[in-house]
Amino acid sequence: MIDLHSMAVEGREAFYQLSVSSSDKRNAFLAALADELRSSAEAVFAANQQDLRDAEVSGLPLPLLHRLRFDESKLEQTVTGLESLQSLPDPIGKTTLATEIARGLNLYRVTCPIGVIGVIFESRPDALVQIASLCMKSGNAVLLKGGSEAAKTNQALTECIRKALVRAGFHPQTVQLLTSREEVTAMLKEDQLIDLIIPRGSNAFVRFIMDHSRIPVLGHADGICHVYIDDAADLQMAVDVAVDSKAQNVSVCNAMETLLIHEKIAPAVLRALKEKFDACGVSLRGDEQVRRIISCEPATDEDWSKEYLDYMLSIRVVSSLEEAIDHINHYGSHHTDCIVTNHQGHAEEFLRRVDSAGVYWNVSTRFADGFVYGFGAEVGISTGKIHARGPMGLEGLTTYKYKLIGSGQTMTDVKKHLISYTHIPLDLPRSDLP
Amino acid sequence: MIDLHSMAVEGREAFYQLSVSSSDKRNAFLAALADELRSSAEAVFAANQQDLRDAEVSGLPLPLLHRLRFDESKLEQTVTGLESLQSLPDPIGKTTLATEIARGLNLYRVTCPIGVIGVIFESRPDALVQIASLCMKSGNAVLLKGGSEAAKTNQALTECIRKALVRAGFHPQTVQLLTSREEVTAMLKEDQLIDLIIPRGSNAFVRFIMDHSRIPVLGHADGICHVYIDDAADLQMAVDVAVDSKAQNVSVCNAMETLLIHEKIAPAVLRALKEKFDACGVSLRGDEQVRRIISCEPATDEDWSKEYLDYMLSIRVVSSLEEAIDHINHYGSHHTDCIVTNHQGHAEEFLRRVDSAGVYWNVSTRFADGFVYGFGAEVGISTGKIHARGPMGLEGLTTYKYKLIGSGQTMTDVKKHLISYTHIPLDLPRSDLP
Repeated sequence: MIDLHSMAVEGREAFYQLSVSSSDKRNAFLAALADELRSSAEAVFAANQQDLRDAEVSGLPLPLLHRLRFDESKLEQTVTGLESLQSLPDPIGKTTLATEIARGLNLYRVTCPIGVIGVIFESRPDALVQIASLCMKSGNAVLLKGGSEAAKTNQALTECIRKALVRAGFHPQTVQLLTSREEVTAMLKEDQLIDLIIPRGSNAFVRFIMDHSRIPVLGHADGICHVYIDDAADLQMAVDVAVDSKAQNVSVCNAMETLLIHEKIAPAVLRALKEKFDACGVSLRGDEQVRRIISCEPATDEDWSKEYLDYMLSIRVVSSLEEAIDHINHYGSHHTDCIVTNHQGHAEEFLRRVDSAGVYWNVSTRFADGFVYGFGAEVGISTGKIHARGPMGLEGLTTYKYKLIGSGQTMTDVKKHLISYTHIPLDLPRSDLP
Repeated sequence: MIDLHSMAVEGREAFYQLSVSSSDKRNAFLAALADELRSSAEAVFAANQQDLRDAEVSGLPLPLLHRLRFDESKLEQTVTGLESLQSLPDPIGKTTLATEIARGLNLYRVTCPIGVIGVIFESRPDALVQIASLCMKSGNAVLLKGGSEAAKTNQALTECIRKALVRAGFHPQTVQLLTSREEVTAMLKEDQLIDLIIPRGSNAFVRFIMDHSRIPVLGHADGICHVYIDDAADLQMAVDVAVDSKAQNVSVCNAMETLLIHEKIAPAVLRALKEKFDACGVSLRGDEQVRRIISCEPATDEDWSKEYLDYMLSIRVVSSLEEAIDHINHYGSHHTDCIVTNHQGHAEEFLRRVDSAGVYWNVSTRFADGFVYGFGAEVGISTGKIHARGPMGLEGLTTYKYKLIGSGQTMTDVKKHLISYTHIPLDLPRSDLP
């Protein structure tokens, strides 16, 4: 078994080198990686074919098989992603606060990488390249653990990453691949060497990680997204947004799981929706009031906190905006929730009071995504409120340090009133060091 | 025993009310609290006298007795703090990002409070008022647990807070006081209701909290701060900064614990420093090279990772800037570290490569403080890298949400190329809602 502690130590060493590297050098890695992926395409596809065969034999469900595939089109997407990442501005070395504290004593807050990050992700092998490249762009070393179904593909991709690291002049251990669960368990204990864990997976999995580590965890658990159709909604828009939020892709975290409808508009909306949902094969579960209007299975209390990730939807009729907001704050997972209404006051109330990472007005919940938001890419969507909330792009992979630059100032002189605080905001310098 | 779960539920309810309150209303609470503290001064002082008598009987050490005292001068400081907090800008409802995602579809990132925060703090009773007021200013409900030595003072202060909450029209349970360790243990389990724990205390205590909760923890553990005197340092400045960093106040987290000196300048610096430190009663522990120059106790490997918080200092001679940086990154606690040098290149290297919240050039480590930085006040100094790093003021008590405002956009239309992304940056609106 590989010694995880040594890997973490090497990751830390690699981070110290990476953290002071130039933006050009980090972009050169991204370019080299695109190149290595293209020239090793056949080897990667062959490895993926083996993973796919093994997965088929072991009876992996079809949607998972689909996610596991890494073919010509995935390769092109991945390479395009690497190219667009190079064109994004460097997230590190940006001065975000500058203050004259006293005469000749200036404070600067400058963004910098976090350190060594552990990422545990699911079966999609293209996620490996995406995560590694986001970490490299932002100056972070990374320990990665992918799904075991993708083991051979991940090995082949990691080999490309290793070559690209060496070509760009980085420590080959800047990106390391873990291959066993035991290594993940060992990683969780390295709180002196690893700064952040990002788990992508089920709710239970994320909670397991949180229970077994002192390292800060950023991840999303469930995506229980709601659409609330207000009494002042446009009927056609309500139907379009609800159908899109549920059925455009049911297996993603930003798909709607519960629909709330104001009682005044419920009969018209439900009849129109029933037809649409029947047509695309979504089965419905409703509360009593819903079932008085359309025929469907009864929804139990359990349904309100369930992430179906399937052609299934729970529906509830509410008597007020207030009731809708309370339902969402109580049963939701603070991911993304939408109100459909033409009433500005109702919308403002909803956006202010719903306690979620994304609060939407008249737009499908499916837009909750780092690429859609213009972040270039995302490492995940955080449903927590600490550090990063919602789609987490490069900015979420940075922290900052305070640089205080003086000329021998002492607190003794402050106490003697020889120095007094001025607290004058300064123009933000464009480059790292003032 | 009080039912902690019910307290957390009430805290959550109170938060939902508080989170949508106006800045004026939150400032009115701060004004009412200043008023209540003034008019209840006698009761608070009497409670404090009792705590002091009990503490003396139980043999509390003198520095702790000093921290426990809440008298006229502490009251004035506290009231002044409340007044300056009112004048700070509202940290919530600020739009920090605005992007046109597509025609008629705008994204806004808006700051908002975190939710319910649990704070566990040490014996100083004035910390209770400071923390509660920072949380109120930033729209967060709070559960507070203070040191048991200050129990009566804390009760009296909490009574003032309760009256001020009611006067300003807030739920009286917006700020709640815990009184037992069992309640703290119970609080750590409420990860569905409490969003953040801020422990202030020893390293071991903070680690205990992290081991027993899924709730994110922001705190500082040790403050092992370094001063490195470079070979290109000004001798007088080096002596002044070193003496101030160590001896101006030894019992604070931003005091220096280890001094590193370049070998070329070591003889001159050490002889000058020895005299100063002898004069102010700081006992020294040095490595072999130090002990060849001045007489002192030998430093063991343990000393390099020790936070003395006392009139004690470990000193090491290094042969290069590189060695100093490596020592700090290895043994330090990522709090605040300083280089004294007249060489800009050395300083830049140090500031870039030292992995600490505060990296200082020619200024005493004692300046690491939220008030000094111009943040008005601080809840604590974070040595972690996630969410808030360094002195944590109002900004560290906020998170943000993404508001996406459309006109019925669906992902189906994006896939049909009826909608295309524009990603145009928009001017930041001044008020909450665009």
